[in-house]
Amino acid sequence: MSVTAAGGFTAAGITAGIKDSGTPDLALVVNTGPRRAAAGVFTANRVKAAPVLWSEQVVKGGRISAVVLNSGGANACTGPKGFQDTHATAEKVAEVLNQADPDSHSPGEIAVASTGLIGINLPMDKLLPGIEKAAAELSAHGGEKAAIAIKTTDSVHKTAVVSGDGWTVGGMAKGAGMLAPGLATMLVVLTTDADVDSPALDSALRAATRTTFDRVDSDGCMSTNDTVLLLASGASQVTPGQAEFAEAVRAVCDDLGRQLIGDAEGASKDIRIEVINAATEDDAVEVGRSVARNNLLKCALHGEDPNWGRVLSAIGTTSAAFDPDRLNVAINDVWVCRNGSVGDDRDLVDMRFREVRITADLAAGTESAVIWTNDLTADYVHENSAYSS
Amino acid sequence: MSVTAAGGFTAAGITAGIKDSGTPDLALVVNTGPRRAAAGVFTANRVKAAPVLWSEQVVKGGRISAVVLNSGGANACTGPKGFQDTHATAEKVAEVLNQADPDSHSPGEIAVASTGLIGINLPMDKLLPGIEKAAAELSAHGGEKAAIAIKTTDSVHKTAVVSGDGWTVGGMAKGAGMLAPGLATMLVVLTTDADVDSPALDSALRAATRTTFDRVDSDGCMSTNDTVLLLASGASQVTPGQAEFAEAVRAVCDDLGRQLIGDAEGASKDIRIEVINAATEDDAVEVGRSVARNNLLKCALHGEDPNWGRVLSAIGTTSAAFDPDRLNVAINDVWVCRNGSVGDDRDLVDMRFREVRITADLAAGTESAVIWTNDLTADYVHENSAYSS
Repeated sequence: MSVTAAGGFTAAGITAGIKDSGTPDLALVVNTGPRRAAAGVFTANRVKAAPVLWSEQVVKGGRISAVVLNSGGANACTGPKGFQDTHATAEKVAEVLNQADPDSHSPGEIAVASTGLIGINLPMDKLLPGIEKAAAELSAHGGEKAAIAIKTTDSVHKTAVVSGDGWTVGGMAKGAGMLAPGLATMLVVLTTDADVDSPALDSALRAATRTTFDRVDSDGCMSTNDTVLLLASGASQVTPGQAEFAEAVRAVCDDLGRQLIGDAEGASKDIRIEVINAATEDDAVEVGRSVARNNLLKCALHGEDPNWGRVLSAIGTTSAAFDPDRLNVAINDVWVCRNGSVGDDRDLVDMRFREVRITADLAAGTESAVIWTNDLTADYVHENSAYSS
Repeated sequence: MSVTAAGGFTAAGITAGIKDSGTPDLALVVNTGPRRAAAGVFTANRVKAAPVLWSEQVVKGGRISAVVLNSGGANACTGPKGFQDTHATAEKVAEVLNQADPDSHSPGEIAVASTGLIGINLPMDKLLPGIEKAAAELSAHGGEKAAIAIKTTDSVHKTAVVSGDGWTVGGMAKGAGMLAPGLATMLVVLTTDADVDSPALDSALRAATRTTFDRVDSDGCMSTNDTVLLLASGASQVTPGQAEFAEAVRAVCDDLGRQLIGDAEGASKDIRIEVINAATEDDAVEVGRSVARNNLLKCALHGEDPNWGRVLSAIGTTSAAFDPDRLNVAINDVWVCRNGSVGDDRDLVDMRFREVRITADLAAGTESAVIWTNDLTADYVHENSAYSS
């Protein structure tokens, strides 16, 4: 299903030989129209990979006719040569697609996304022929193969679909983290056959990522390559209400975000941090992130230790409104901390399952937010200390 | 030497039975005068342990006659009972010391510091008799025993001494981290026989901690209990110049700070991050901290992988002034990144030794800062996932 669940799209995933492993490493997604509206959000990291710099410009025009994605190299911190390579990649996609459908594609409407190691130039002698191969395999059933071709350390490929009345939003994701992902990238391509223009797509996508991917924080490390694109073909000829459409986009993003956390490198726990009774939503998010990034807590949860003191330590480092003597914390629904002090018996907390739920009650208002993270494990250390050497 | 290197101080370290392990767990440091000037800095965490709340008030008076420190329990997040326990501890110290030296000690001039697990009440039935035992063992040679008694997961006790012309600054520290320590606390007590008043002590101590302990960031986790005290007895009858005195305090703090990093839990590398050519010192510190807290980089360095891309990713998340295309990064003096792109051959970087030096050149000004951190290891995970369970 993936990016071809919605009508008006073809896709392919092939092995270009960019990865030494010989596994699939190049994906192509083509919008066959009639519409080619698009929106995108990108990493907030100021050190941006060449394909991010390129695709940010493409999205400004509000139109994307195709997306080419490679794994096996991030093309980040590669200087002018890296940007030239991205440009050449877009040129090649337009050239190849125009052979089948003359004058239908312009390089300036081809988005490029890359994932893999930073600081290494892409093997263009393999990537460019790979584009020809991918174009030859484009199919309205190619979504799964495209999702597989963008994997790096992902153990599974990730796809999601939500359908409305006569229209569909589908998508694929790769990554083992978030807009702060495990290794050098989260990439997401969403497609819809709804007949929606670029401003409406942009509005729906920004609202969706703000409460989904932006609140998935596996290890606090923000990538140079994160890219989330939403493409509309209009093939269904249905224009849903904006609220309904935005909710479908949010649901697909939420589903993919949970899949990213569930596949985070080396993790043994998926941790849901809900901050409640905050004075503002920003406070709730700040507290949730601080808890999510506390290495000591993440180690404790790995050890199935309901160490609420480390939750309070993390809350205490924020600027959120709260009174330390009114804080309450529950772990898996047992209120182990009440009024900033010892609460219910910590031995009542059952930590055997993969999902851990932390509730932090700031007793300062009515706002709330949910942040997802993972535990910190020896496997995470092993995976990330052996990656490039 | 430790806190009794300077004249005018006695100290003791004994086993009160607070720790199940039966190792020393209670230290007492007494200023025998003639002066009792003092200054202190404390954790910036808004969730503060009872002894921090107490000692902050004591220091406001500018006088400390004695410091009592316990390991085996942080007395943090323990509510009103925790504060009562701290108060009772100070009362007991004053009472016991006044038996030998009537009317010489007031509870309001007794500082209290605690370290260990959060969220557990101290065993006062062991702690209070321990104070009597410690007072009986006070000695002008008790500094080492005091330093040993405040250890928690420390593998060694930490002391440092710097002498001027007729005066001395000495001290002890415990912790496996920083003003963001490994487990629930960094505690430091510094003593001097210099004849210096409280405002001068405060000025010297704040200047010293700002560039030493505040720039030691083992794992980014800020404790609820961090306490650094500086006590002056005036016993040397020498008043050094303020610059000379401040430099001695800085040197002792720097020495102890390096010992904290060198003993950080589970670490196999001590990592020195120097940010140069920053527009402001704040920029340099922000960038240094961001690099120091990047889990992916810390894993890579553990694996002896000179992964400069992760350094750039970390720099990119800051608000510091820089142009991504002008960033340079050296690892162990090899400039592996030049102008934001691939620099010298990474295979030239020798990573075999415990110390790793990262230099980040922002090419944006003339300011600099040094931050120390550690690598992230499976041992760190094991130690911190098994601690309280």
